[in-house]
Order: sequence, then structure tokens, then C-alpha cells
Amino acid sequence: MASYQPQKSDKFAFGLWTIMNTGRDPFGEATRERIDPLDVITELGKRGVWGIEMHAEDLIPPTATAAERDRLIKEANKRMADQGMACVNCGANVFAHPVYKDGALTSHDPKVRQLALQRYLNSIDVGVALGSKLCDLWWGRDGAEVDAAKEPLEAIKWLREGLNYLQSYIDKQGYTGYRLAIEPKPNEPRGDIYMPTVGHALGLIATLNKPENCGLVVEIAHSRMAGLNTYHDVAQAIEVGKLFGCHFNAQKPLRYDQDQRFGSEDLKESFFVVKLVEDTGWQGARSFDAHAFRSSDREEVWDFVSGCMRTYLILKEKVQKFNKDPEIQAILKELRSGAGEPLPPHDQLKKIAFDADQLARRRLHHERLDQLTQELLLGVR
Amino acid sequence: MASYQPQKSDKFAFGLWTIMNTGRDPFGEATRERIDPLDVITELGKRGVWGIEMHAEDLIPPTATAAERDRLIKEANKRMADQGMACVNCGANVFAHPVYKDGALTSHDPKVRQLALQRYLNSIDVGVALGSKLCDLWWGRDGAEVDAAKEPLEAIKWLREGLNYLQSYIDKQGYTGYRLAIEPKPNEPRGDIYMPTVGHALGLIATLNKPENCGLVVEIAHSRMAGLNTYHDVAQAIEVGKLFGCHFNAQKPLRYDQDQRFGSEDLKESFFVVKLVEDTGWQGARSFDAHAFRSSDREEVWDFVSGCMRTYLILKEKVQKFNKDPEIQAILKELRSGAGEPLPPHDQLKKIAFDADQLARRRLHHERLDQLTQELLLGVR
Amino acid sequence: MASYQPQKSDKFAFGLWTIMNTGRDPFGEATRERIDPLDVITELGKRGVWGIEMHAEDLIPPTATAAERDRLIKEANKRMADQGMACVNCGANVFAHPVYKDGALTSHDPKVRQLALQRYLNSIDVGVALGSKLCDLWWGRDGAEVDAAKEPLEAIKWLREGLNYLQSYIDKQGYTGYRLAIEPKPNEPRGDIYMPTVGHALGLIATLNKPENCGLVVEIAHSRMAGLNTYHDVAQAIEVGKLFGCHFNAQKPLRYDQDQRFGSEDLKESFFVVKLVEDTGWQGARSFDAHAFRSSDREEVWDFVSGCMRTYLILKEKVQKFNKDPEIQAILKELRSGAGEPLPPHDQLKKIAFDADQLARRRLHHERLDQLTQELLLGVR
Amino acid sequence: MASYQPQKSDKFAFGLWTIMNTGRDPFGEATRERIDPLDVITELGKRGVWGIEMHAEDLIPPTATAAERDRLIKEANKRMADQGMACVNCGANVFAHPVYKDGALTSHDPKVRQLALQRYLNSIDVGVALGSKLCDLWWGRDGAEVDAAKEPLEAIKWLREGLNYLQSYIDKQGYTGYRLAIEPKPNEPRGDIYMPTVGHALGLIATLNKPENCGLVVEIAHSRMAGLNTYHDVAQAIEVGKLFGCHFNAQKPLRYDQDQRFGSEDLKESFFVVKLVEDTGWQGARSFDAHAFRSSDREEVWDFVSGCMRTYLILKEKVQKFNKDPEIQAILKELRSGAGEPLPPHDQLKKIAFDADQLARRRLHHERLDQLTQELLLGVR
Repeated sequence: MASYQPQKSDKFAFGLWTIMNTGRDPFGEATRERIDPLDVITELGKRGVWGIEMHAEDLIPPTATAAERDRLIKEANKRMADQGMACVNCGANVFAHPVYKDGALTSHDPKVRQLALQRYLNSIDVGVALGSKLCDLWWGRDGAEVDAAKEPLEAIKWLREGLNYLQSYIDKQGYTGYRLAIEPKPNEPRGDIYMPTVGHALGLIATLNKPENCGLVVEIAHSRMAGLNTYHDVAQAIEVGKLFGCHFNAQKPLRYDQDQRFGSEDLKESFFVVKLVEDTGWQGARSFDAHAFRSSDREEVWDFVSGCMRTYLILKEKVQKFNKDPEIQAILKELRSGAGEPLPPHDQLKKIAFDADQLARRRLHHERLDQLTQELLLGVR
Repeated sequence: MASYQPQKSDKFAFGLWTIMNTGRDPFGEATRERIDPLDVITELGKRGVWGIEMHAEDLIPPTATAAERDRLIKEANKRMADQGMACVNCGANVFAHPVYKDGALTSHDPKVRQLALQRYLNSIDVGVALGSKLCDLWWGRDGAEVDAAKEPLEAIKWLREGLNYLQSYIDKQGYTGYRLAIEPKPNEPRGDIYMPTVGHALGLIATLNKPENCGLVVEIAHSRMAGLNTYHDVAQAIEVGKLFGCHFNAQKPLRYDQDQRFGSEDLKESFFVVKLVEDTGWQGARSFDAHAFRSSDREEVWDFVSGCMRTYLILKEKVQKFNKDPEIQAILKELRSGAGEPLPPHDQLKKIAFDADQLARRRLHHERLDQLTQELLLGVR
Repeated sequence: MASYQPQKSDKFAFGLWTIMNTGRDPFGEATRERIDPLDVITELGKRGVWGIEMHAEDLIPPTATAAERDRLIKEANKRMADQGMACVNCGANVFAHPVYKDGALTSHDPKVRQLALQRYLNSIDVGVALGSKLCDLWWGRDGAEVDAAKEPLEAIKWLREGLNYLQSYIDKQGYTGYRLAIEPKPNEPRGDIYMPTVGHALGLIATLNKPENCGLVVEIAHSRMAGLNTYHDVAQAIEVGKLFGCHFNAQKPLRYDQDQRFGSEDLKESFFVVKLVEDTGWQGARSFDAHAFRSSDREEVWDFVSGCMRTYLILKEKVQKFNKDPEIQAILKELRSGAGEPLPPHDQLKKIAFDADQLARRRLHHERLDQLTQELLLGVR
Repeated sequence: MASYQPQKSDKFAFGLWTIMNTGRDPFGEATRERIDPLDVITELGKRGVWGIEMHAEDLIPPTATAAERDRLIKEANKRMADQGMACVNCGANVFAHPVYKDGALTSHDPKVRQLALQRYLNSIDVGVALGSKLCDLWWGRDGAEVDAAKEPLEAIKWLREGLNYLQSYIDKQGYTGYRLAIEPKPNEPRGDIYMPTVGHALGLIATLNKPENCGLVVEIAHSRMAGLNTYHDVAQAIEVGKLFGCHFNAQKPLRYDQDQRFGSEDLKESFFVVKLVEDTGWQGARSFDAHAFRSSDREEVWDFVSGCMRTYLILKEKVQKFNKDPEIQAILKELRSGAGEPLPPHDQLKKIAFDADQLARRRLHHERLDQLTQELLLGVR
């Protein structure tokens, strides 16, 4: 039996906030004590984790002095270096403070929009100092419960303006290779968040000044909160070269944000997402944006960390089996036999007499193929 | 009290299929008799309807001879002319026949993909002959229940190839001004349909050879089946000039496709969609893609038709009231006072000392504004 | 135009916690300051509110001395008397403290189950002292994310044991007329909460030692979080005499707990719930369990309070119009003409030759009736 | 590796309709030919299936003569006897004909209510003739889209009247041991169906004249269409002795009725349902109410049949492993150590001084336990 021990080469990453989570929720108080972000780095590193994600504010309090800021960055870099780690993403927390109560980039108040952008500029500077190449924007407060108050037309324009503004900063500063990403989510904490899905974000990106420099961080739980197929969502991002990051976690569809340990829900869909990133040779970090159950104490958070990585490695092994399974591959070969056939010219196509009834009889083996997949997942083949 | 009588200038349209619907569903047989598509045109025209939408197959059986086809087109044109009507959209039915059981444009079988494209080419020819300028693609069979069988990566490529192929046909034929549109839907009849939302379709369009010539037909019920805010969805399409058509109907969120009479669910969201198309001066037809309840007989279908249009006109009147309501407008004016303020240069922005706590205290009037909106909708102000 | 001014005779009530809500959520800090529970009583009373609901802990900190407890009860009674108010429900907060992290009545730890019951006993004593007649149990922590850890079979037994234990306390103490109620909710803060709907709670109640003394507090938002029809849910509770309380609020279906101002979502469903309680002469308080949008400041909370009550009164007026509308009533009279016809004996029924096709042709006027309802709601008839 | 060959002793059953399904759906025509119900029995029997479920109309056309009816019953009995099979449930199809367009038991038309009851009486007679002991009522047409038209209060009364009427027929006829069951479903084909969940049905049953003789057929897909936890639903039915039947299938939550092969979605939840019926020694048939994907041809329907049973047997084997896994069982033993501790008397309980903070620190092993469960399901432990 395999050991499923994470290696640095697996490029596993965790958000600092995922470990710092104390279990507080809308109906109850914290169930585990705070942990220092620097200790998070070290503890993750000791467990085979390769990367960290963060909001600049996770590490550096917004009220920190410049000296304190520099000290924290220096210490974080040291901790990462000690553990052979990297920072893969540094965004900004523009959702916790009451000032963002009706949006950050889309607040009606120009001062709030500017404050949010200031925080994002800061996060890019911090990211650069930490060796990151990505600023992930999760704009959870940019949404509405009262559509009378804010026109989505203006909200979209502010989002575009903000992204363009950040991009021009990256360009001016000469932060070569630094990129932006949108992390879409359908709702919570707002009734409806702007750019609710992977698709909506792709639509917005296409209208930016430098669309090539802005992509997506796709999060499984966020797609599932919209009832969408996460495999399809990640595939659409990959297909257009826009998967700048991927958050592996778990969630029951269409309910509150659960952010559970990767693999704790829907093994089949999780398997296909792993298969997709592995088969396409996607090079990004395998990041986990989730947190331990609120019923877990501080020590059990490490069970959560270990579980995320183990399940990924188990599913990765299943992918290899799937790709070598003779019966599965024989079916797929038959199904895909005409996959790449080119289209005839229009005038020629219009004249072909198709026998639809006969074509309809082609056997597709869907029941068999899905059963084989499930049995492979269950470890009985 | 206003009469709410539909006028041709209101540009109301119905799909032929909406009236031809016989009430058959997965669990039961038809509850009303078939009606001839030509009679649908005339009967709609007599009731103030301006436009029709159709699948070519609604009018012309796939097995029709060329002569029969020409006769039907000629007769349909005459019926429209008699009633001062226009055809606003002609798509193809590539979902009903068993040959499309695993997709039309995304079938693994190259012959099926070709057959589907042949039907779309035909629908464009028919549309041109009927004076339409739009081919709306609803690819309800292009999806999956068994993700092992089909990679979404290949499905996306086939969708793109198909759209490009249709566009080059339009270009070759010199069908000036003829355009394509995607009508996204999240699921049903497939477990998951490719391009499930407005956003995903926008993402795909941005990668086409001629993205400017492909847009969206946004359907309220389809957005609600994904639990999304239909007002936000329509707004995103309008904001990028991609609202090529809009299907007004109603639906309880996150359940089977109900396609109910416009306004029968969620008056507030319906109101904001009407407000959006009216306030922006959107010029498209106000199309209804819905059908009478299965409990309705053939005659009651006309109650359904009348209801769709009356509710639209009532809501349009409410929009005018909203836009003139002094208290509502005073709140909006206050909220939007800093809407257009330009952003300072980056170096300047970074130096501003914001007082977040003070900014957080700005009063936003959300409870009041939403209450006023609801009271206006309820007709008590 | 009517004034829609709330009167004490309207029996409007608010939970103390609804006004005490500070806007804190999983992603952000409080947006408005705390308010003293005693001041809540007075302020509500001044605005025409008749009743309060509470958790004992809203008024009395769990750590209060007996003297402090008595003083607070005395003061609360005085405040209510000054304003002509009553306490309609006093439950216990057995969800906020970390000790309930895996359940209160269903914790594996017998000490936690006992602690929770101690808190409920206390809440009954406090309720009696405040003149209340109802202990509403919302057991939001009694659920699971990890089904491996707890068998629902044992959870159900603990819930039953707990309810029976509380009932026997009421009996022993001679608290005549004091009753228990379950307030079901499908999920949040637990992945799945035990007794997720009105129905499940009715099923449990039927198995209690004294089922006649335990009923339901039905909350609109909780039914909608399960995607259910709130009108049907309230009706089932009323039909069996189990509607011991009703929480009027609003919520988009199938997402996180929004607890919005009554009437802010789905006017039609809200209308039918009001119609049901008014038409059946239900005598309970019209309670609002909701809170102001997080974007509201402390002062705007009173807009929220006012809006809940105004919308109820507006809808109540609509009910009266609906019940007098000649066209609506004519349709309903026709539809209901055979409503009460008794069934023939079995042997006789078996011999009747029904003409199903002919019976199927009966016209039901559903499109017309629903349209008339919407127009009445919109104030245009 | 085990063979997972179904045995008659496994008590697997299929509905006749599940095999007779032709793939027709709201958007498309049949994809496989009809199969004779008698042949379904034989073919199932040959594949190790033990039981059948049916609507009387699946076997006997409503228009059949008495002689034809008798012949079909005789032949069905012979086919079952030849294969060592039994009929475990015979209900009535009161949903397909247009006469039921606004309900069967809850139609406003007394003639329709009587017709529906006549069909149910017939189904009981047929069931008795086939050796069945259960009449399962799935009243899919008993619901509403237009709440103005039908009061749920009256609908509930009609459902109760109907169930009582059927029960008194069973009593009069002396059909000893024959029982009734409700099969709840939240929606589709109606906007909302009355008695939408397991819980609601339990609530209704408690009000019947002979509640002990009416139970539930719980269907996994129906619980998932309501977003509920199917394990919890089945448990509540079992705990009160009301699980008269169980339909094993699969479904993505909160969308149209998919009725997929058992195990094709959510392996973990499926596992816990199997664990529940196995651990409690539940004696009912393991029935599959599902159908092959529409993309399957007639022959592939047998892949579907085989897959349902194989997955059940695989999961049953996993249950045995779970129950013997030392690490899992050690955790469970620790968690459940105080499970059965009795409650102290009220006066004593009120005096106990609990240290809530200390109790809150108890370690619960949820992350570890869930991870072990998933690894067991994945076959890597």
C-alpha cells in the first residue's frame, strides 16, 4: 500500500487563513485558539506543504508600522526558506472591516473604492516582497441584497476599472510576471455577489485592458455553491489558459459556505478535477482553501491538513489506474474514434443525407463506463 | 386605470413552440391538442404580438420536401405580413431526435456533429427567408451525466468549432447582419449542460473567430435554475453589448424547468429586469419563452399569452413610477453622489490616510429603499 | 391610502436578538453597536410592537447571579408593562458557546446534554417569570457534518428524551398551559441539522409522551432554505393544530441563512402565508425573526422594524381584497363546487364507469387565477 | 476479490417501470424500444433479482377486460414463480392520464378523486393477487403551481380521507397484513407536491385512523431533490418503524428528477444508507427505482441493472469493514462512552455546576474519522 506522504514536489499549498481559522461562525464563538501566522508557515512546512497563500492582512495587521511590516515580511521569508516553501498568492482582505459593508471595489463611496485599491496595491507590494507572482481578488463584499440601491451596470464598470488600475500599477512598477486573478463566488456574505461564477469572471476578463494578465482562481466549493459541475468549471478555465490558481476543498451543493477538507464530499467530482489538472500537466500549486470542522481543536487542524493532501494523492493514484485500465480505455478509444474528424465545406455538408435513425443506434456504454469508474474509485478493480 | 393593451410597438414576441406545447411531461401525456404553427402566427398577431421566435423544425418537418419547405415559408411570411409581424429568431431543434442523445455539436460521433451543423445551416437559411437576423443556439443535449465518457475540454473545442463554422457560413453567404447567439442553461435534459450560465457563454464567445457577431439569448428561468440573480445576468450581457435576445418567463429557483408565465414568480426580480431593458433603451424583442400550465386547455393558452404581456406592461409602468418617485430618487442621488469620481494616480493613492472607521459609518438607507421598492410594487405608493 | 400603522391588537412581535444583532458575519466584524435588551423592549413598544421573543441568555448572561437575574426579570416585566407588551416565547441559547460544538441535546457527552437541558429548564423558569407560555427550541447545533461520528438513530432518541424531560418538568412544576415548540431548520450552522423541516418535526412530535403539548415554530426563511413552499408548510402545521408560533421573514431559497425583513423576497408566497393565518383566525403573535441588512446602522434597524410590520399590514389588506374580488371568487366557487362531496362505499365506487377523457377536459382557470392574484398584489385591480 | 454476484437472498428488487422506461423526456423522444412487462420479470429474475415493484397499470392496461386482467396476473405469477421471485409493492398510476392534471386524490373534482381511489382499490386487488403486501402511493400530481387555486388545508384533508378510505377497504376485504405507504417527493411534475419530504409524510400518517398500518417508501433521489441528507431521512423512518420500502438510486441535489443508477452519485451518503439498513437488520427489499441513462440502448439497460446491485454489494462489504476497522471503532467507542447515561432528576440537574469551558475542550476526532471513512470507501485501508 502506498504511503501517500506529501512531498514538496507535489506543490501542496494552504492559505494562512485556513489554519488561522478559529471556528467562529454566525451562531457561535471560536472553538480553538488563535495561531500566529509565522508559526503556521513553519508548521505547514514541517508537514510537507510547499506553498502558502495569504491575504497581506493575515500576516501584517492593517495598522502595522512600516518597520513592523518589514520585520514580518523578513521573518515570513525566513520561515519559508527554512522549510523550502514559496508564497503562491497574496491578496487583500477587503471584506472584514465594516467600511466594506456595501462593497470594496464597488462601494458607492469613492473613498471606500480607493481604500480597497490601496489595500490591493499593498498586497501586491507584499506579494512581491514574498516572492509571489499572483494577486487573487476575492471580492466577497461586492454584491447586493438590495438591487434598488446599486445597478449591476455600474458595479461591473467599477470592477473593470479596479482591475485595470491594479494592472497598470503592476506595469508601472515593473513587477514582471506578476498577475491578477478573480476568485468567483455566487453568494455569501452578500445575497448575490458580482461575477458569481467562473464563467462570469471569464466574461469580465475578456473586457479588460490586458486580458492576458488576468485569470481565475477556481474554488471547488464556490462552484458547488452555485450547483455547477466543478470539473466543467475548472476545464473551461484551463482550456483558455486562465487557471491561475485552484482551490481544492469540499462542499454540499447549494447551501452555506462549508469549506470542508478536500475529498470530504463527492469523491467522483473530486477525482475528475484531479484527473484534469494531472492529465493536462497543469503547473500551479495544489492549494487547499478550507478549514477544519468547527468541532476540531487546534491540534486536530493538522488532521485536516494531512487529510487534504492524502486524499489528493490517493485520487492522483486512481487517475493513473484509470488511464491504464484496459476496459475503460477500450471504451474511451471506441467512443473517441471520430473525435478529430474535420468538418466538410458548407456546401458539401448541406448535401449529405444522414440516416439519423441509424446514427441514433450507436451504443455509448455510459452505464458501463460510469460503473467502472465508481468501482475503480471504490478500490474494487 | 391603465388598459395594459399590448401594441406592436411594444415588440412582444413568443416562440412558436411555446404555443404549440401540448402539456406532455416526463410523467404524463398531453393535456391539450396540437395547434398548427401557421395558426399560431395568426392567433398571436391578432392579440397584439409583434414577433415570433422558432426552431426551423417547428414550422418545417425535418422530412419535408423542398417544395413543402418553400410553401411553408411563403405561408408563414404571408401570415406575418397580414398581422404586421416579424421573425426575430430562428434556431434549430437538435435535441428531440434520439440521434442527439449524447449531444449535437459535442457528440463523439462526427456524423452527428455534422448533422447538427446541417440543421443549424438550414435554420439560418430558413431564418433569412423569414426575415430574421438571429440564430439562437440552445444546445440542451450538449452536456453529460457521465463525465468519464466525455472530456469537457474536447466539448468546449467542438462548441467553438461549430460556432466558427456557422459564422463562416453566414459570411460566405453574405447574410449581412445575421448573428448567432448562445442560450445558456445549467441542466435538464442533461445532468450538466456545457456553458451553463450567461457567464460561461460570454467566456466562450470571447474565444471565437468573430466574437463581435455572437451574443446571448438570456432566459430568466435558466438563470434561476442555477440560483443566480437574473437582473445581474441580464446586466452583464447588456454591459458588453451581448444581449442579442431576452426570454422573459418565470421559475422557482433550483428545480426542474418550469417555464412559467412571465411574472408568475418573483415580482421584484422581474421588475428589475424590465427596468434594466427599459432604462438602457434596449431595442430587442420582449420575447416570452414559456408555456401555459399543463392544467390549461388549448383556449387557456391565450390567457397565458395575455398574462405575459400585461405583466410586462404593468411592470414597465412601475419602472416609470420608480424613476419619478421623489423619496426613492433622493436616496439614490445621495448614494450615487461619488459614483463617477476618478481614481488618483497610484503613488498618490498609496499615501492617502483613510479613516476607515469613519467611512464605515456612512448611512446607506438599504432597508428604507428596499421597503419603498416593495411598496411601489404593491401599488400602495 | 391606508396608514399601515401597527397597533397592539395586531400582535406584532420581535425577537430581542433580532434587534441586538450587530451585523457580524463569518467574513466580517460588527457594523453597529450593541444595544441593551431592556432598551430593545422599550423601543419596540414605542413603535407599536406588542410582543417579544427571546432566549433567556439574551436578557440574562449565563454567568449572572441570582440577584442579577431577578433584577433583570423584574425590569423586563416593568418595561413590558409600561408599553403594554407581552413575552410570547422564551427559549435557551444552546448554540453559541463552544461546548455545544457537536450538539446540545444530541452531544455524545452526557454532561453537555445535561448542561443543555439545564439551560432549557432555566429558560422555562425565566419564561414563566416573564408571563410567557412557550419555550421554542431551535437546536441549531444538533446536526452533523461527519455522519460517521453520530448515528441519527441515537440523535433522534436524545431529542425525544430531551423533549420528554422538559415536558415532565413543566408538569411537575405545575406550569399550566406552558408548551414546547420545535423550530426546524435544514442546515447552517451544521452541515445537516436533525429534524430539518416542519414535517420531520411533526414526525418526531407524534412520538413524544405528551404530543399534544409540543408544537412548532415555523420560520419562513427556514422552509425556503430547504426549497420548500412556506405556504404549504405553515398550512400543514395549522391543519393539525401545531402552529404554536410563526416567524415571518424572507430569504432567497437554497442559500445561506439571510433572515431578511419580512416581504423583501417573494411577495406572492408571503401573501399566501398572511392569508392563511388571517383566514383561519390563527391567534398567535405575528413574530419577526430577522435582522436588518448588515449595511444598516443602529438607527436604520428601526426602518427594518417598521418595514416588517407595514408589509404585513399591506398584505393583510390585500387578503381582504382577494376575499372580496368578484372575479377571483367566482373562479374559486366554480373550482370548489364539489369540494365536500362524500365518497361512495367501496363496492359502489368500484363499479362506477368514469369517462376519464371527458373529466380531463374540465377547465381550471389556473392561468387566469394566478394572473388576477399577481395583479391584485401589484395593486392594479 | 469478491464476485459481487446478486443472490435471491439479497432481496434486490426493481420497479417494472424502471426497465420499461424508454428514455423519453420533456425535450426528446424515446431512445429505446418498449419492452413487455412480463419479459421484464423474466429477464430480471435471470439476473438474480428477487422482487418486483409495479403500478398495476404497468402490467394491466386501464382499458383491459376482466379476462385480460386475470390472464396477465396469472402469467405474471407464473413468471415470478419460475424465477423464484416476489412482488413487493403494487401501486396505481394516477399521474399519466390528463384527467389527473390538477391532482388525483386532491383534485377539486370529486369524480377525479373517486377515479383515483378506484385505481388504488384496483391496485390493491391486483397486489393481493400477485402476493404483494404493500400499496405504495406516489401522488406526483397532487401538488400545485397556483396556490390561489387550491388551499393546502383542503388538500391535506383529501389526502387523509383517501388514505383512510383505502385502509378501510383493506380491513373490509380482510387483506391481512396489507399495508399502505406514502412515497414523498418535493416537486416535479408539480411546482410543489403535497407532503414533500419524509417528515411531512410522517406528520400526516400520525393523523390517520390507523397510523400503524401506513408507512413510507423513502427514495434517495427524492430526499436529494429537497437537498436533504438521505441517511438522516431513512434513519428517521426506521427509528419509528415506518420504513415500509426503500428506493435506492442516485441524483445530484436540487435539480430535475434524474433517477440514476444507485451509487452513481455521492458514494459516502449511499454508503451510510446501506450501513443503516444492514446494521439495523431491516428486512425490506433493496429496491431500485431508477432508470438507465437516456443515452443507453435496450441492451445497456441490463448494465444499469447489474450496476445497481453490484454497487450495493460493494458498499455492503465496506460496511462490514467499517464495523471491524480497529481505528474507526476505537474512536467511536470513545465518542459513545457516555451515550446511554440516564438523566438526573430535574431538581438535581438544576443544581449541577458545569464547567462549560472545560467540557468544550473534549476532542471529537471528526476530521480523522471522516478521513478514515473516505479512505475505507476508496479502498486504500
